[in-house]
Parts: sequence; structure tokens; C-alpha cells
Amino acid sequence: MSSPFVPGTMVRLPGTPGGQLTGLTFAAKDLFDVAGLPTGGGNPDWARQNPVPTRHAWAVQALLDAGATLVGKTITDEISLGILGENAFEGTPLNPAAPGHVPGGSSSGSASAVAQGICDMALGTDTGGSVRVPASFCGLFGIRPTHGRLDPTGMLPQAPSSDTTGWFARDAATFARISTVLLREAIGDALPTRLLVATDAFGFADPAAAEALAPVLDRLKRLVPDWREEVMAPQGLTTWSRAQRTLQPVEAWDTFREWVERDNPRFAFSVARGLVMAAMTPEADLGWAALVRREARGRLCHLLPPGTVLAIPTTPFAAPKVGLPLSELDGLRSAINVLCAHGGLAGHPQVSIPGATVDGRPIGLSLLAARGADAMLVRTALALESI
Amino acid sequence: MSSPFVPGTMVRLPGTPGGQLTGLTFAAKDLFDVAGLPTGGGNPDWARQNPVPTRHAWAVQALLDAGATLVGKTITDEISLGILGENAFEGTPLNPAAPGHVPGGSSSGSASAVAQGICDMALGTDTGGSVRVPASFCGLFGIRPTHGRLDPTGMLPQAPSSDTTGWFARDAATFARISTVLLREAIGDALPTRLLVATDAFGFADPAAAEALAPVLDRLKRLVPDWREEVMAPQGLTTWSRAQRTLQPVEAWDTFREWVERDNPRFAFSVARGLVMAAMTPEADLGWAALVRREARGRLCHLLPPGTVLAIPTTPFAAPKVGLPLSELDGLRSAINVLCAHGGLAGHPQVSIPGATVDGRPIGLSLLAARGADAMLVRTALALESI
Repeated sequence: MSSPFVPGTMVRLPGTPGGQLTGLTFAAKDLFDVAGLPTGGGNPDWARQNPVPTRHAWAVQALLDAGATLVGKTITDEISLGILGENAFEGTPLNPAAPGHVPGGSSSGSASAVAQGICDMALGTDTGGSVRVPASFCGLFGIRPTHGRLDPTGMLPQAPSSDTTGWFARDAATFARISTVLLREAIGDALPTRLLVATDAFGFADPAAAEALAPVLDRLKRLVPDWREEVMAPQGLTTWSRAQRTLQPVEAWDTFREWVERDNPRFAFSVARGLVMAAMTPEADLGWAALVRREARGRLCHLLPPGTVLAIPTTPFAAPKVGLPLSELDGLRSAINVLCAHGGLAGHPQVSIPGATVDGRPIGLSLLAARGADAMLVRTALALESI
Repeated sequence: MSSPFVPGTMVRLPGTPGGQLTGLTFAAKDLFDVAGLPTGGGNPDWARQNPVPTRHAWAVQALLDAGATLVGKTITDEISLGILGENAFEGTPLNPAAPGHVPGGSSSGSASAVAQGICDMALGTDTGGSVRVPASFCGLFGIRPTHGRLDPTGMLPQAPSSDTTGWFARDAATFARISTVLLREAIGDALPTRLLVATDAFGFADPAAAEALAPVLDRLKRLVPDWREEVMAPQGLTTWSRAQRTLQPVEAWDTFREWVERDNPRFAFSVARGLVMAAMTPEADLGWAALVRREARGRLCHLLPPGTVLAIPTTPFAAPKVGLPLSELDGLRSAINVLCAHGGLAGHPQVSIPGATVDGRPIGLSLLAARGADAMLVRTALALESI
């Protein structure tokens, strides 16, 4: 277990006085540029190969402009290729809500820093679950906004057709304050008018996880009385997952290939393996995956007209132990991906809400909505806290 | 460029007084156990996972018993999976004979230390060329003995059906002294009675390399006047190479799989890639490669009755520059393997003899002989120095 911060990046960069976020502190995942600090991307060979940025990333600048104070850059899984938060080079940030268990990743340090109370909020990124999973494991509010909504300038890409900026907070009020700034939209009063409960997603989760989420789901049903059960992915969540696990690594290989083929960088075995397998993906598999993505988008657009939210468990279980063998981790990663793949595939906004535990470890309930309805999800999280 | 020694392993372990090698110093590749020092294997995660040995490796003990003094453990390519001598974790040992160029690997530090004159001789290992290539690139005498002849106890294995202990020296006399001890055989007076010059191997080398080797080859012809040209691999050296590059990585994966699947260790991308590809090798390819190995063994037994030596360029070119992009290195590695694959495939002894340069950089001439005729090769190297 180590610090959530990348060594040498604990700075204190005060925001513009008198802004909406004055008095709040934040950290930024080491995928976001901070002028004057290397952008490490969680890999020792990445920073060396790239110039120190001279401008802040858009999201960092937006928070500074709103008055928040930056306190440091946080550990990420290598080049955001990981979901558990174990970085062989920089260490595994503490999950204070489940000591001895992983924080989730790839925005591991951001979630850890907020969960530890070191800062009020933190920036992460989410391509295949990198905000949602650590939010679930660390017991935080976390958002993956509508894909394409936020300006990604200065954020190290992975798979651009799935990449999003995201953020964490411990309480709904702070979560709403940062969301207003980054969504560039006030969090109105409108609550959802209809709730769908995804039977396939709850069915895929560990029974203990589904059971643990029942009380918070009940509160949600009181908030949105017009609810019904629904199958999220008639094609199979596992089909969606397979498609995303075909498309995303190939896009990531496209992003990093030039660097890898030039510099032969060091990686944990699992990260290198992902890139090697991606490089060998047959065209036919890619073509199939692109069709599944289109089908998934159609399905979620159909399920989620304005005013409707869909509830799923954010992860199929709470945080696994730190230091499990790779062969076990592979199975856990695959299972997590089944409940996360829709994000990168379809790009709908999703908020993970804390409030449940399995054997004392947090697990999140997630709400999805129509593209662009990010603020309604934040409002729902706020309302749920006071019901 | 860095030291040839693994940090913290520069020891001084005097040998037994009054032995054959008294007064000589040696270094051991960090694949050999030295009691009380971790065996690092060139990878930061290997040493951590394995207990510090309490006994010396057989070869280390043999040299100490003969009176030589151990001065340190040398850098190797990660778990001996490399042929150029660039280690992303421990650095690239200096090639004093060709500054700015790689030392060759995987016994990179051993060759570098001897070439720099830091010690008189050094232990390496050779599975796919790991003694022969650095001997060629650094301008040293180097031997890959008959497979199975030396006791491999305490040497970190890679692909046991190809692994051998090997050693380096700057001059033929020292080379003969260490060879006597490790081969457990006096270097007699018998010279080869017949010389074959492998036209396919010389044809595969860069023209400049083949030309540079002509003078030393001429001296060899004066030493063994009954010479003729011969095709070494009628099936194609490239066929042999393909077979070895199928068999060896699969065997290496077998050796390291348990560790990799448990600990998810860090590797340079190229090393991880090799393991990933090995894990996916189709059974049919393995079966084909095993047949080619058998055919190659038959061919070399036929070509090399007792008293015959076969001359080939050790490498197809002199040492490439340090720091080339991976995409270029891949091509160089493949070409080197074409001239080295027979070693692991067939297990015949091979000695690389210095004496030629291309643009000032060394390149070695290699002699192969019948299995067990190691001493005759050493004798030939000695005789060649004084002709």
C-alpha cells in the first residue's frame, strides 16, 4: 500500500479567488496535464518520452478557474490499462474503506485520495470503468459523463471513442458542486420520472452484492415510484463485454503503438499482454464488435428516453484483496467488464452512488440516463441522500 | 551505458589457493547462484520472488575451487530473453570494442567486464546465442559447450533442452585455462583434420562481415589445409531458425509461466511479447519444429564426424547501435537468430574466435565440431592465435 500521489507531484496550486469551488481541494489523475509537472501516465517510461506540459489540461484549468486548489497528481494504472488499481511501478493506493483490498482503477489514486479525505474531490478518466469501479470499491460518488461532452484537451488518451473525463467526491453536495462546474450546467430540480431496474445486471452480480444494494435501490424506488424491471442487454451483457474488449484494446494499441514500437517500454506483464493481443485482433472480430456496439447503442437509446434512469450494480462485487495472483485477477477483471462495457460502447452518462457494503466493503449503485442527462443523474444522487 | 555489474554484487570471493586458475579473476552472469547474493536474472521482480541462494552454482564453485577469484555478478538480458544486451531495468553494459554499440546479450555484462579488462574471464549462458553473440560483438573468445556436458546446478534455466553454461576470455591462453577447468579435460594437441566452410552461413552474413572474416578464415585454412565449401542447412538456415524460435520460447514459457501467472512481473514490452506469443503457439507448429530439430541434428552429425570443424560467421554483422527503435531491433534479432539457431537445436559445441572487424567493430568467426569435441575447438583457437 502506498500514497495515492505520484512522488514529486504534491503541489499546492490555488484556484482563482471567489469562485464557485473556493475552499475545496482537488487532485488530478496523472493522465491530466498540469503545467510544469511531467504527465506520467502511471508508467516510468511514458514521462521520460514526453515533454513536460506547459499548459493545464482543460479540466484542471476549469477547476482552478472555479476556485478549487490542486493538491497533487495521483497514481493511475499504467496508461489507464487496468481496472483494479495495482500499479507494479508506483504501488497500490490505499483503499481506506476496505484496507487490504484494491482501490479499483485505473483512477486508483484519485479515488484513494478522496476516500482518505486528503482532498475534497478528484479528477479521473473512464474508458472501460476507470471512474465507476474505484467509486464503487472506495464508497464514493463518481461520474462517467456523456461521451464527448467534456473537452479532453490535455488528458492522455487511451481509446478516444470511449474515453471520458470523470470525477469523485465523498458527499453528494460536493459532487454536485464540481459537476456544475465541469458539466457547465446548473444541477436543476428535475428528477427522473421513470426507473428501470436491470434484471440481467443484478443477476450477474454476486448474490451478496445484489442483496446489499437492495436498501439503496428501495430508496430509489421511493424517489421514482414509476419503476419496473427490464433486461438491459437482450444480446447478453457478456456479448457487449466481448465487443468492448475487442474494440477498446485495439484503439489503445493504435494510441500507444508508435511509442511501444520505438521505445520498447517496461510494463507489467498483463499490460503488455493486452497490447500484444490487441495487435493481433482479426479484422473480422473488429467488424463484429463494431456491429454489436451499434446494436448496444440502439438498445440503450430505446431504453433511456429523457426522464428515464436505469439502475445497475456498478460492479459485480466489492473490492478484491490486494496481491492476488494474475490468473485470479484475470477472472475478476473479466467479470467487472461485463457490468462496465456499456459505458465505452454507448457513451451514456452514469453516476455511481455509494451506500451499500458487502462484508463491510463498499459497493456502488449506478444510474444511467439519456445522453446529455448528466445533471439529472447528479440531482438524483443528491435527492437520494436526503430520502 | 552502465556498469557491467549488477549494483550491490561487486564482491571479492577468493578462490582456493594453489589452483590451476590462481591469479585469475572472473565474473558470473546474474543467472548463476552465488551464495549470499540474490540471483536477479536481470529482472527486478525475479530476485524478490526467489530466496537468496545458500550454495554457489556448480560452475562458480568449479572456478573458485580452481583458484580463480570472483569479482561480481553481471547484468543479463531479462531472464536471458534477449540477444542484444539492452536491459531496460539495469542498463546496457558498455561495449568497449565498439562504444555506442550494444555489447550483445544475454550475457552482456560478462562480455563487457572481460572486454573492459575488469576481470580475466566470465561465466555466461547460451540458449539461443547468449555467449556467441556478445563474444562476436565485444571481440572475445567465447564458447557454447556441447549441450548437457556441464552440470547446470544453480544456473537459472530458460529452455533446458537448449541451455548451456559458457564463458569468455580476451586471449586464447586464458580461454584454454578456464576451459580445461570447466570441461574437466586437458586441452590436448589434436587439431582438426578437415575444415568445412558453410557457404549458406557466409552467404547470409552482410557482405562486409563475410569479407572482414576472410583473413582469419584464410589462417584457419592454412591450419587445416583439407578444407571445402559445404551447405550447412540444406533445409534452410531460416527453417532451422523458425524451428528454434518456435521451440525455445515455448520451453521458456514453461519455465517462467508459474511465476508470471502468479506475480504479473514487470518486463520490457519485447520480453513480455515473446512470452505471450509463446503461450499461444499452436501444437501443430511445435510438432513441426520438433521434426526440424531432429532433421537438423541429423544433418550436423553427418557433417561433423570427429576431427571435422565447420566455420561460420558467429553473427551476420557487427554490433548494432545502442537505442535503436524496437521495430528495427526485431529485424536484427531475427537475422542474428538465423546464424545461431543450430546451437540450441542440435547442441554441438561452438567456439567464437575474435580477429576481424567491420568499420572498426569486432565480429567473430565460429567453429563447430562433433558433440564432445569441445577441447579440440579450444585447441584450434589457441593454434590459430600463433599462425
